[in-house]
Amino acid sequence: MGVRCDFPGLVTPDGKRWHYLDTAATAQKPQAVINAMSRALGEDYATVHRGVYARSADMTVAYEAARKRTAEFLGAKSENEIVFVRGATEGINLVAHSWGLANLKAGDRIMLSQLEHHSNIVPWQMVAERVGAEIDVCPLTEDGLIDLDWLEANLTEQHAIVALAHVSNVLGSVLGAKRAAKAAHAVGAKLLLDGCQSAPRMRLNMAELDCDFFVFSGHKIYGPTGIGVLWAREELLDAMPPYQGGGSMIDKVTFEQTTYAPPPQRFEAGTPMITEAIALHAAIDYTTQFGMESLYAHENGLVRQAREVLSQINSIRLFGPESSAGILSFTMEGVHPHDLGTILDEENVAIRAGHHCCQPLMDYLGVPATARASFGLYSDESDIDALLRGIERTQRIFG
Amino acid sequence: MGVRCDFPGLVTPDGKRWHYLDTAATAQKPQAVINAMSRALGEDYATVHRGVYARSADMTVAYEAARKRTAEFLGAKSENEIVFVRGATEGINLVAHSWGLANLKAGDRIMLSQLEHHSNIVPWQMVAERVGAEIDVCPLTEDGLIDLDWLEANLTEQHAIVALAHVSNVLGSVLGAKRAAKAAHAVGAKLLLDGCQSAPRMRLNMAELDCDFFVFSGHKIYGPTGIGVLWAREELLDAMPPYQGGGSMIDKVTFEQTTYAPPPQRFEAGTPMITEAIALHAAIDYTTQFGMESLYAHENGLVRQAREVLSQINSIRLFGPESSAGILSFTMEGVHPHDLGTILDEENVAIRAGHHCCQPLMDYLGVPATARASFGLYSDESDIDALLRGIERTQRIFG
Repeated sequence: MGVRCDFPGLVTPDGKRWHYLDTAATAQKPQAVINAMSRALGEDYATVHRGVYARSADMTVAYEAARKRTAEFLGAKSENEIVFVRGATEGINLVAHSWGLANLKAGDRIMLSQLEHHSNIVPWQMVAERVGAEIDVCPLTEDGLIDLDWLEANLTEQHAIVALAHVSNVLGSVLGAKRAAKAAHAVGAKLLLDGCQSAPRMRLNMAELDCDFFVFSGHKIYGPTGIGVLWAREELLDAMPPYQGGGSMIDKVTFEQTTYAPPPQRFEAGTPMITEAIALHAAIDYTTQFGMESLYAHENGLVRQAREVLSQINSIRLFGPESSAGILSFTMEGVHPHDLGTILDEENVAIRAGHHCCQPLMDYLGVPATARASFGLYSDESDIDALLRGIERTQRIFG
Repeated sequence: MGVRCDFPGLVTPDGKRWHYLDTAATAQKPQAVINAMSRALGEDYATVHRGVYARSADMTVAYEAARKRTAEFLGAKSENEIVFVRGATEGINLVAHSWGLANLKAGDRIMLSQLEHHSNIVPWQMVAERVGAEIDVCPLTEDGLIDLDWLEANLTEQHAIVALAHVSNVLGSVLGAKRAAKAAHAVGAKLLLDGCQSAPRMRLNMAELDCDFFVFSGHKIYGPTGIGVLWAREELLDAMPPYQGGGSMIDKVTFEQTTYAPPPQRFEAGTPMITEAIALHAAIDYTTQFGMESLYAHENGLVRQAREVLSQINSIRLFGPESSAGILSFTMEGVHPHDLGTILDEENVAIRAGHHCCQPLMDYLGVPATARASFGLYSDESDIDALLRGIERTQRIFG
């Protein structure tokens, strides 16, 4: 895509090309995002929402413009549906604790799936334990998709929430989100989508997806660390109690009684991630310029090519579906993924090796860890070539 | 102090000197912090704790070095006592929800003070309501200090926690922290200090202060937004249940049972604020080079000068003690603080006007709002001169 020169992170210290295949963990940042951050921390810097001076008013406009841009990116009805959080993890914790503690009761059931990231498991376990709810686990199809036939057959009116990865961070499998929404709503349950891996790779429209909650992280969509987004239907947010208490989320504080601001402020206690929101705006502008459908096709094509190439090697076992959103997991017979990762690093190829914060999925796949190559908008065939060269060298070393 | 040129934010768009007197709301950033952020987002960028490639290992070293530097800055026993949070607000919420829900029971009492920031009131109200605890409010002395005589006389063995501002964000009053700690510990209560305004202005040593919890925000100590610090005694953190669930804070996840990592990881769910931690490290290095005692003396002297000058004006009412940690609140008869702030803005003087997230303190002072001038390491007499000129002009306009 000829955009590598926009990314200062894609060069090794000695000036070589870095074959960065760990974009599912975190994306490299374009210079436009770094510049937006520098300006916001420098000549433009001021706090938001409170200052009576012009620069603070300007910063407030910029911060709220980031919210509007995020709403537009998600096809939200209104920017009031956008809550800035620390990351997707905090977004799910916010829903689990605020919506969950207010709405879940003993005997209720929470539906997750076998491929969920720990961030979409542990918060629900914490809340389930507190209220006496139970967790069910939707199994996967043979090629690693969440099994919607099973889901439809097993959802009951006891299920209050269904929380699923829109795209698996290990397998790249894409959820049939509309079908999951229909199934959830048919029994009166809400649907939360973990959009960490879909937001950087797919065109999103909340009304089309028909979900109730959606979260993603800024750093995975070519933006800064320290910020993420929770989208929720306005009527749900309206009814939710606050999650954290503090400045900016209140209406009136007395020691006798405190009343709260309407959403989204109710959920943004304290000085917000001001410069991170502004840099996230720049990241969304940068990413969407390529067209989200094109990005999906680009990365989907790279996974197909990588599968094709790696399937020629006898010792390689591939996981997940043929058609994937830019993410490919595999193992190599007789070589621990960590050793593979270390040898690839010597070839300037960066993959991830481990359980990818998905221990239950590893248990299901029957492996302690996988190697994972994940693509981004800056990836191309030369990255696959380099991966293959590194794997062949590993074969020679371990052969 | 001749350091203004280090701060790109201290210049107006038309190249004039900006008399920034809102450092208690948020501090401007030195170029060293902005550069650290840019490098971390650019050529050095990678995730932490997980990558098998060298750059991720380097980034992990840098992230953990920020933790060590923060521990040293606070005079902590160990870097394991340092939890990176989103800001001081989240730090207090973490203590209130994790330590509080595990340790507070019906009938327990929580001691706050009349000058607390909403962030040190609302989280305790939320937890008190949940467990059935009661909140007591320590009054102030005539000059706006937390009344430690009253505190000593009124703490009982029902009090489980005392949570106080180390320095008031409205009055600049400095708490007698050691005496408060002694009083709290005498009844078996813990002491939490809100260090938002002391961390940028005072030499800190956790053992000397003898508190149990201490929080501060990165953006108030010349660092980035989106990060703060919770320090807690190691044995307290060890015993605390997790606050948010997700990746990196677990030991082993299964759907049947999840076990958690030791602190500080237990409290850092998800991808952390990687680049913010690195920029915070740069901020601490920058700030401490001047000597924290010198910074305190510098800002304390500026408040004395400002009080001296403003006390000559009949229509001005000054709040707070003579000796203040760099913060001065006042009102002007017949002029709303917002109007004063707006006129001062035309003179390139930025003050804050409002309740400063301290509505109970405003009720106590009997005013809806104050004007607040707060100093930083880059402030000097010319800022006071400009403030005075602006006030005199306001007098003429409203006179």
